[in-house]
Amino acid sequence: MIDVIAFDADDTLWHNETLFTSTQERFGELLARYDQGDWTKQALFETEMQNLQFYGYGIKSFTLSMIETAIKLTGGRILASDVQEILDLAKEMLNAPVQLLDHVAEVIPELAASYRLMLITKGDLLDQETKLARSGLGATFRHVEIVAAKSVGVYRSLLAKHQIPPERFLMVGNSLRSDVLPVVALGARAVHIPYTTTWAHENLETHHQPSVDYVELEHIGFLPAMLESLGKQVPCQDRVGIEC
Amino acid sequence: MIDVIAFDADDTLWHNETLFTSTQERFGELLARYDQGDWTKQALFETEMQNLQFYGYGIKSFTLSMIETAIKLTGGRILASDVQEILDLAKEMLNAPVQLLDHVAEVIPELAASYRLMLITKGDLLDQETKLARSGLGATFRHVEIVAAKSVGVYRSLLAKHQIPPERFLMVGNSLRSDVLPVVALGARAVHIPYTTTWAHENLETHHQPSVDYVELEHIGFLPAMLESLGKQVPCQDRVGIEC
Repeated sequence: MIDVIAFDADDTLWHNETLFTSTQERFGELLARYDQGDWTKQALFETEMQNLQFYGYGIKSFTLSMIETAIKLTGGRILASDVQEILDLAKEMLNAPVQLLDHVAEVIPELAASYRLMLITKGDLLDQETKLARSGLGATFRHVEIVAAKSVGVYRSLLAKHQIPPERFLMVGNSLRSDVLPVVALGARAVHIPYTTTWAHENLETHHQPSVDYVELEHIGFLPAMLESLGKQVPCQDRVGIEC
Repeated sequence: MIDVIAFDADDTLWHNETLFTSTQERFGELLARYDQGDWTKQALFETEMQNLQFYGYGIKSFTLSMIETAIKLTGGRILASDVQEILDLAKEMLNAPVQLLDHVAEVIPELAASYRLMLITKGDLLDQETKLARSGLGATFRHVEIVAAKSVGVYRSLLAKHQIPPERFLMVGNSLRSDVLPVVALGARAVHIPYTTTWAHENLETHHQPSVDYVELEHIGFLPAMLESLGKQVPCQDRVGIEC
């Protein structure tokens, strides 16, 4: 029933938000030298949201927003050496080792034997490509699509481009907003695997969600069993480890 | 003979390097407040080259390198207000109107009627997508590929992905290094249309070029005639405005 399984990358295949969170903490410590209290996180998020239309997603955008926020919060008193420290944080992030989530190293090659696998991710082009290379999973994905946004229109174009009928497509990811809702809207299937931490921008309040048809799994290790259940037409409710 | 014509974007379809050049001039003026003389340009270029492996191409990368260079050249004396000015320059660049090169507005829609057109460009994903949208040419390109680098391997993957035999593919661009040599190496055709200004990184010394088979045109307005000449098997040398 399913030919193509597409995966989100950050926080679905490998840890990512933890890297941003720990950098944000160090950014907070840097700003604390200027007596700014703890509204740093909110101020940074606001700057990021204002800049999203210009910068898009990724570490470079995040870094430019950190610098802008630091100038603002310190009232222009930030020292060049601290701006340099922010630049160094960026390079550390870009060089950080890729840490796969549990079960990913086994499940992805297993699924690659039976399905066409695809990667669909937002973020910096170069950063995502090098992370994929460093992850050791590069060869298992038939198609890699790095996109500026994950809207219904973007998914529609991707399916058309690769000539995939929606009913034969399954998307797996940690974000309801980016990986699940737009895919279900097209009549394709989606699996939601929540990550421990989610960036505020990707959060959707539960009461904003229409009643949509997707499967939620605790971790990616349950994915092969879920796919088997689809093939066997066993009602989802009867499968272990799956919330339908 | 040719089914697919791919175009580079920056400095092939629309002006780009002039935007970087004018920003660089303003960056130089900003640094002149700190008595740095005029080796700014070389220092910036060196920072950009060192950062290329981390940041890749595009305006955000350029901006992060400007900030790093400014900190270095001022010996850490740069004021936060001047760092903010550099951030403002970045947003101006990202918002700058897209100025098509001469003949592009006529030639591209004309060719779209007879060929599958493709865009292959480096740079920031979001920036390139919004420029394409603002250019008014978006609908004329069947495929848009924004890549982290333009190597032989990248072109090989693109042709495989779109199932294009190399002998039916023609690439048009302003950079010998990125748009011509790797394409010719694959056995496909390439047209070089030099831009008035070329970023130092894209420059290839003439004596480094192997003897390769490509066509050089003065401007894109000559492209339809050149393509017609291919179809008619008329020797390239007999066509007007073409250097073979």
